[in-house]
Amino acid sequence: MNDIKRALFIGRFQPFHNGHMYAITQILNEVDEIIIAVGSAQLSFYVNNPFTAGERVEMIRLALLEKNISPTKFWIIPVPDVNNNAIWVSHISSLVPHYSVVYSNNPLVKQLFKSANVPVKPIPLVERSEFSATKIRQLMIEGKKWEHLVPKSVAQYIKKIQGPQRLKALLMKDE
Amino acid sequence: MNDIKRALFIGRFQPFHNGHMYAITQILNEVDEIIIAVGSAQLSFYVNNPFTAGERVEMIRLALLEKNISPTKFWIIPVPDVNNNAIWVSHISSLVPHYSVVYSNNPLVKQLFKSANVPVKPIPLVERSEFSATKIRQLMIEGKKWEHLVPKSVAQYIKKIQGPQRLKALLMKDE
Amino acid sequence: MNDIKRALFIGRFQPFHNGHMYAITQILNEVDEIIIAVGSAQLSFYVNNPFTAGERVEMIRLALLEKNISPTKFWIIPVPDVNNNAIWVSHISSLVPHYSVVYSNNPLVKQLFKSANVPVKPIPLVERSEFSATKIRQLMIEGKKWEHLVPKSVAQYIKKIQGPQRLKALLMKDE
Amino acid sequence: MNDIKRALFIGRFQPFHNGHMYAITQILNEVDEIIIAVGSAQLSFYVNNPFTAGERVEMIRLALLEKNISPTKFWIIPVPDVNNNAIWVSHISSLVPHYSVVYSNNPLVKQLFKSANVPVKPIPLVERSEFSATKIRQLMIEGKKWEHLVPKSVAQYIKKIQGPQRLKALLMKDE
Amino acid sequence: MNDIKRALFIGRFQPFHNGHMYAITQILNEVDEIIIAVGSAQLSFYVNNPFTAGERVEMIRLALLEKNISPTKFWIIPVPDVNNNAIWVSHISSLVPHYSVVYSNNPLVKQLFKSANVPVKPIPLVERSEFSATKIRQLMIEGKKWEHLVPKSVAQYIKKIQGPQRLKALLMKDE
Amino acid sequence: MNDIKRALFIGRFQPFHNGHMYAITQILNEVDEIIIAVGSAQLSFYVNNPFTAGERVEMIRLALLEKNISPTKFWIIPVPDVNNNAIWVSHISSLVPHYSVVYSNNPLVKQLFKSANVPVKPIPLVERSEFSATKIRQLMIEGKKWEHLVPKSVAQYIKKIQGPQRLKALLMKDE
Repeated sequence: MNDIKRALFIGRFQPFHNGHMYAITQILNEVDEIIIAVGSAQLSFYVNNPFTAGERVEMIRLALLEKNISPTKFWIIPVPDVNNNAIWVSHISSLVPHYSVVYSNNPLVKQLFKSANVPVKPIPLVERSEFSATKIRQLMIEGKKWEHLVPKSVAQYIKKIQGPQRLKALLMKDE
Repeated sequence: MNDIKRALFIGRFQPFHNGHMYAITQILNEVDEIIIAVGSAQLSFYVNNPFTAGERVEMIRLALLEKNISPTKFWIIPVPDVNNNAIWVSHISSLVPHYSVVYSNNPLVKQLFKSANVPVKPIPLVERSEFSATKIRQLMIEGKKWEHLVPKSVAQYIKKIQGPQRLKALLMKDE
Repeated sequence: MNDIKRALFIGRFQPFHNGHMYAITQILNEVDEIIIAVGSAQLSFYVNNPFTAGERVEMIRLALLEKNISPTKFWIIPVPDVNNNAIWVSHISSLVPHYSVVYSNNPLVKQLFKSANVPVKPIPLVERSEFSATKIRQLMIEGKKWEHLVPKSVAQYIKKIQGPQRLKALLMKDE
Repeated sequence: MNDIKRALFIGRFQPFHNGHMYAITQILNEVDEIIIAVGSAQLSFYVNNPFTAGERVEMIRLALLEKNISPTKFWIIPVPDVNNNAIWVSHISSLVPHYSVVYSNNPLVKQLFKSANVPVKPIPLVERSEFSATKIRQLMIEGKKWEHLVPKSVAQYIKKIQGPQRLKALLMKDE
Repeated sequence: MNDIKRALFIGRFQPFHNGHMYAITQILNEVDEIIIAVGSAQLSFYVNNPFTAGERVEMIRLALLEKNISPTKFWIIPVPDVNNNAIWVSHISSLVPHYSVVYSNNPLVKQLFKSANVPVKPIPLVERSEFSATKIRQLMIEGKKWEHLVPKSVAQYIKKIQGPQRLKALLMKDE
Repeated sequence: MNDIKRALFIGRFQPFHNGHMYAITQILNEVDEIIIAVGSAQLSFYVNNPFTAGERVEMIRLALLEKNISPTKFWIIPVPDVNNNAIWVSHISSLVPHYSVVYSNNPLVKQLFKSANVPVKPIPLVERSEFSATKIRQLMIEGKKWEHLVPKSVAQYIKKIQGPQRLKALLMKDE
């Protein structure tokens, strides 16, 4: 059990897309198991955070199973925010299984884990401008094609829960 | 008791104005009683939220009594925010008497209540651009006439608690 | 408006009973209006706090109207707890209309309001051992008669929402 | 996807033991998938709550894989407490995938889900007095045998993280 | 600056007494500076936590100056509780200056700091049964002599803020 | 003890600079002691709030000792934010020693303390545009000279904890 190499990978996954999928596949070439922490778990039904943590957990598992990644190789754990960066590493570490490396490109995340003596490695990226959750939400709002930017099972799931309709409704603010 | 039709009407009422008054009058044509939920109850002494929940409760009752609406027909209940939309309907429902319909024009509110199987109806609006809390606060800040946009008793009350002075002071930021 | 004498009366009202009713009647002999603050508003579905704030607001209004107390003479406002006694007076004051006197027999409440320079007067009590919310909940649990200890309309309301059944269910703990 | 029958099973799992294992096996005879919600996720390093949510997630997965339960049939999700029972069902529902039935023997849990129109079924129990987390923690504290009451992989894991030593240390209170 | 040896000493100090004074004197024989963290800073006006954090900060400084301890050798910092032990070390560390050793006899505290790789040393104790904050509060409540158990300046300060009267009032529960 | 005149001075001190130093020196000409409340204590590792409360406490004490201000004349106390302005004065008052005057130029702060009957005096300012924490953080980010804007000991301390590097890292956002 001591020999397992486990990576922590943190995101909001609003929604989970092919860029996330690519990163996970690459990380799994370097480690035995990956913990996918679903951040800002308490946020949903906002334009920038439309999906609940439960919905995001579900879409991530669908995507990984679709790619034939063994479920013994990944953990999907919702993690609510804390408003104090100084306690954030402890907070997340108390909610997920033990890990030995963090993959992140976020400077704050890198700095916080480094000062807690956790090794940090960069996330392998691919065609970043294409695979962006912000862009995908924008395409949904505009009624354009977004399905090709996410795994097939995620597209199906988002349609089943009427994700684009939810996003459009959230956008129509009226004070 | 089972036959009473009660509506839920949610606002921040910073301050309560003639547009709110009109909506309440119209809603009371359709239902027996109205619950007026005073949202963001924990916020006060901000430029966008100058009045405490207690002050807002007081100005709303003054206005409704001024219009000779029977106090047996309305409930005024402060409701603090929660940071998680997914629990918001449960939160508000635990603080107010039972209701059977919600009046709202806010897309998020409509979506959240609909997914909780609560019927939602649109708020009857009148001359909306005139009756806007944002505009009224702006007029107070600029020292212009705002009193004609709110019920007479509300204008009196806001003057008594020196509302315009409070707003002007809050505006003068100096880091 | 300045001449109105308004009292603050705080309780949990789990449930509202004849002792509360008596106290309110007595207080209304001494002041013009009474604010009934429904404390621990966030608690419900516990053995010691079975009813939601909304249910308590509703049963209190039913009781006061049953006694022909004019609804222009009372305010019923839910107030959630804060975990810091030092801020409690400010917290409650921000949620209710302005008041000039507090009625309480609780030593902590008396001390906190006195140190905030708010006059505190004792609550007029009657047959205290009979009219106790704790005792009434116990009678409900034991399936004994409790209805005579609360106003008639409160008894009706509690039966309608199946209060005794709720209490019995909550009691059956099973780790 | 619509035809999957998914059950929600909630516990604190301090620690996960053979009684939990038995219940999960039985529930999986009745449904397709089970969501194991790890409650009180924010509590750890207390005598009654010694293990972090991450440690509990890890021991549960070890146990289920040991019993050859396919990881496609279960979800393990940490859920922090909320202090307001009235919002608890919404809170938990926002953190886990969609479910259609809850298994619980706890009267409060049963009542809360029933009033949210979620069907509740009883947890199949076996030799309950033997398999109790409270009893297991007590045995650890007393230095007696406890390993036979939990799955083998859980016993190994608890020893690896020095669970009994942690518990004994937590017990030695000295104000 | 790097050569300063700084110790962290945590207590609730309800009130600060001669046992605390003795411990601080002894610790200052071993280190250059001591950080006195005033725990449960958010609690006050409870029978077990009668004094505010500000009052406790003030009484501690009075006591240390009375003993001619140079104010360049100590820091007094209020620290509110967090409900999650797993983040407690990070939380306290973000509120106080850097330290290199913790003095504590509390098993939980020792365990949490050790697992964060902070050295922990035992607090030097003297005549423990005599010097106990619980006992001192009890003596105040019973109207007996307590002044000899605390530094002279602390006794003066507690009398000035009418501490014993506050405690007695808090004790008289009613409802 | 009653004759001590104590002032409250509130800031975020991100970082502490010569303008703060000047204000404190001037205030100490008018009062016996100054309480320096370190606001937003829970924030750190943000571009606008890079330093922890503990780091800010430490740099303030270094600066005051550098200017030969006696440590018996000042108190440095971290104060976390509350999200409700109406309780803010009570909150801060519970965390700091008793004070009789507040120094502030912030309109909200002035209004809140005035309505709590605390006298408020203006902060003496000097060359304000030069001495601005926002400007100093900007200079750090741009790699320009900032050291002359803060006390020498603060510059040393910030370099020791690699403050400018932290700020630059925090700036590099990447979704």
